[in-house]
Amino acid sequence: MVDDARLSHINAAGEAHMVDVGDKATTVRIATAEGHVRMQPETLALIRAGNAKKGDVIGTARLAGIMAAKQTAALIPLCHPLMLSKVSVEITEDEALPGLRVEATVKLSGQTGVEMEALTAVSVACLTIYDMAKAADKGMQIGGIQLLAKSGGKSGDWQRSKE
Amino acid sequence: MVDDARLSHINAAGEAHMVDVGDKATTVRIATAEGHVRMQPETLALIRAGNAKKGDVIGTARLAGIMAAKQTAALIPLCHPLMLSKVSVEITEDEALPGLRVEATVKLSGQTGVEMEALTAVSVACLTIYDMAKAADKGMQIGGIQLLAKSGGKSGDWQRSKE
Amino acid sequence: MVDDARLSHINAAGEAHMVDVGDKATTVRIATAEGHVRMQPETLALIRAGNAKKGDVIGTARLAGIMAAKQTAALIPLCHPLMLSKVSVEITEDEALPGLRVEATVKLSGQTGVEMEALTAVSVACLTIYDMAKAADKGMQIGGIQLLAKSGGKSGDWQRSKE
Amino acid sequence: MVDDARLSHINAAGEAHMVDVGDKATTVRIATAEGHVRMQPETLALIRAGNAKKGDVIGTARLAGIMAAKQTAALIPLCHPLMLSKVSVEITEDEALPGLRVEATVKLSGQTGVEMEALTAVSVACLTIYDMAKAADKGMQIGGIQLLAKSGGKSGDWQRSKE
Amino acid sequence: MVDDARLSHINAAGEAHMVDVGDKATTVRIATAEGHVRMQPETLALIRAGNAKKGDVIGTARLAGIMAAKQTAALIPLCHPLMLSKVSVEITEDEALPGLRVEATVKLSGQTGVEMEALTAVSVACLTIYDMAKAADKGMQIGGIQLLAKSGGKSGDWQRSKE
Amino acid sequence: MVDDARLSHINAAGEAHMVDVGDKATTVRIATAEGHVRMQPETLALIRAGNAKKGDVIGTARLAGIMAAKQTAALIPLCHPLMLSKVSVEITEDEALPGLRVEATVKLSGQTGVEMEALTAVSVACLTIYDMAKAADKGMQIGGIQLLAKSGGKSGDWQRSKE
Repeated sequence: MVDDARLSHINAAGEAHMVDVGDKATTVRIATAEGHVRMQPETLALIRAGNAKKGDVIGTARLAGIMAAKQTAALIPLCHPLMLSKVSVEITEDEALPGLRVEATVKLSGQTGVEMEALTAVSVACLTIYDMAKAADKGMQIGGIQLLAKSGGKSGDWQRSKE
Repeated sequence: MVDDARLSHINAAGEAHMVDVGDKATTVRIATAEGHVRMQPETLALIRAGNAKKGDVIGTARLAGIMAAKQTAALIPLCHPLMLSKVSVEITEDEALPGLRVEATVKLSGQTGVEMEALTAVSVACLTIYDMAKAADKGMQIGGIQLLAKSGGKSGDWQRSKE
Repeated sequence: MVDDARLSHINAAGEAHMVDVGDKATTVRIATAEGHVRMQPETLALIRAGNAKKGDVIGTARLAGIMAAKQTAALIPLCHPLMLSKVSVEITEDEALPGLRVEATVKLSGQTGVEMEALTAVSVACLTIYDMAKAADKGMQIGGIQLLAKSGGKSGDWQRSKE
Repeated sequence: MVDDARLSHINAAGEAHMVDVGDKATTVRIATAEGHVRMQPETLALIRAGNAKKGDVIGTARLAGIMAAKQTAALIPLCHPLMLSKVSVEITEDEALPGLRVEATVKLSGQTGVEMEALTAVSVACLTIYDMAKAADKGMQIGGIQLLAKSGGKSGDWQRSKE
Repeated sequence: MVDDARLSHINAAGEAHMVDVGDKATTVRIATAEGHVRMQPETLALIRAGNAKKGDVIGTARLAGIMAAKQTAALIPLCHPLMLSKVSVEITEDEALPGLRVEATVKLSGQTGVEMEALTAVSVACLTIYDMAKAADKGMQIGGIQLLAKSGGKSGDWQRSKE
Repeated sequence: MVDDARLSHINAAGEAHMVDVGDKATTVRIATAEGHVRMQPETLALIRAGNAKKGDVIGTARLAGIMAAKQTAALIPLCHPLMLSKVSVEITEDEALPGLRVEATVKLSGQTGVEMEALTAVSVACLTIYDMAKAADKGMQIGGIQLLAKSGGKSGDWQRSKE
């Protein structure tokens, strides 16, 4: 369902702008997002073999996701700069996909939500997985990047409904 | 098919590292990638209505994608800094999705490929679409981010096979 | 009139430093700045013709200005990092100039003013206009970059006097 | 005179894009730009007095300009990342203005010009001067930012005509 | 003495993460750090001679340190973005070293300490000194980078014990 | 020995500037630098214990060093932007120190050396080690940051003499 009759980042004249959040309440805001990289089973096996040694594909992607969350306002033109109080990124193997699943949670005490930070962390973690495995498998596909839940703020809590 | 028995960014000790491209030939390299944002039909209608006036969601996302391509080496830990000679991002409506499709092409005369730059441009354009329409539709999903084609370099041309 | 007998960013030893704002009150602070790009009438006509189609010179410059405001503390050595709650940039045509006029407003609830953020947004929007039209007109001139008004903070409200 | 019937950064569909410079010749390219900050004579005297001790306003602004030239591609949406081989910024006092004059020269061996880098260096040096003296004089005005000369590239040499 | 049985940035699963500071108290936090660049006496003499004219090695390094403090969260993967209220960097000559000593103090009203900002300011100031004098002396050594004192926060005040 | 009678980044007027490298030959340039973090033996044991599980302190610091090398020109005011072709960072335990030793090698085919990139990689890797272990040991000391060897360029090869 579409919750709102307008796009918040477009003003009355139809111009892109940064929404004024100065009058919003300062509350704890948490957002969780997910995504995945689908790959050949052999590629997943290669990553797992590497992991057995030093965990580098997954460890590197996790760090890249955390660092990217902090760059969200520099990447997404109309995002506000925010003082994130926590970013975590979890990456797990999924044989059935086959591939890797990424989940990111971002937390803030502030005047605007952190959905974009969580989604950016997931996206850049997925891109990093692609980068590190692309010599083996150029056909990998990144998908399923979506918000799982958010809490805090005027619009209240939101949870993705089961599909 | 998995083309290679190893992950290029992991050295013999299993540690993440930046591949040495200093001995690769300087050739023209082009990469094209795609992705999409799936949304409610009403959300697409809102974006289209905005477009009728000033085109801001699509225009903003296109610029965000172009600018992000230039930040790829700062986002993806083991990517090389590159002097891109061209970045283009096209965004089109797809009623059947329903949603927006993003395609990015990046060009370089250099020693390493630009797949990551094209994929990063697509990802950040998709994130920007999400950001600008999220007040109306938090359930949007970003997916189908994949390489379509690359040319140039030792590994030669690569084209996504029809699925 | 010069309001103060000293330059705030130079300490007693004459060295540049970042002023301590930790003891300043947290108040709502707003700053508005303006500037313009003077060009040949034919250049303005070209931009307007482009606008009729997709509004890109003006739309691109507006976004560049908004994004630059968020980079102020990275560009101006002694500026404090700030959590801007709003940035808006308006660009209007002026036949008499002839050229484009840029006005930016920045808002914050914080311990220091946002004059530099507003002036940086204006400057980078003007530079972007120059960049996009320079193939047609290298002689364009950027000028009239000045603060129009500021409110909030110990030094109180300030309004540019009519000239 | 307007030299060209089109804006180079807008494609046939009227969309902003990054021009493909891949087929341009690699030549030495130099650009020089200027600008100024007009201020109260007392403000200029304060800056000069500071200079007598440690030269900080002028030294800080010069460095800020040099560093900003290196960030041009991150600030101006459609600029190409470039490997600048030289950036210099000169700042001189002008009693008649009264104020400070800034001149920047940027050099590159590459496929596209460095006008935007020179103009960006001038703009950020001027903004930094404003920042450091604004406690004394909020009414300062930045102006006269313009290209003085460029050389190299297909469009050849260009020199600002005497006004 | 080692104060704590665990490394704060590693979770129960042994993965690097950004510590959640959302429940920490907002207090004034100050950190002071120091470091030095050891060089040939002739190199120190060259820097001093330059200083006599315009103070550039020391002035440039001081600014680089201040600006780097603001980039700490972008450089150190698990650091939180912070709104620093003050950064100061002092550089003094030490004939006995021989070389230059750098001391940085950073202040913040926030939920986490600023030790890393002070240490980053010192490190980048030292690197800048090396850069500016390396044509004369490639053998310079950067060392003694350590925290001198911190105050504020749950862990309370800490002072380096005399060695 | 001091090799040169002047500081390269200071011009005849004593002002800091970015050296013109446009006329230097494009050659392969390699630089290797080292540094260390001295800590309590218990802290080293904690890091080693973490490593046994997932290697995060060392893995995170290695990535931070690699990524920082790519930001050198943004951190060190007068460094040139460079297209690094390789960055590697090795971190090893040293019981005798006690602590961790960091060594970085950077490679480029270009017109200027990469000493600063190697030293920056070492410095930021050391800062990251400090950050991740500081909850256990605030007294750690970063030191011994120095160039080990460089090759390529007009000034030729340079090797640190045994001390």
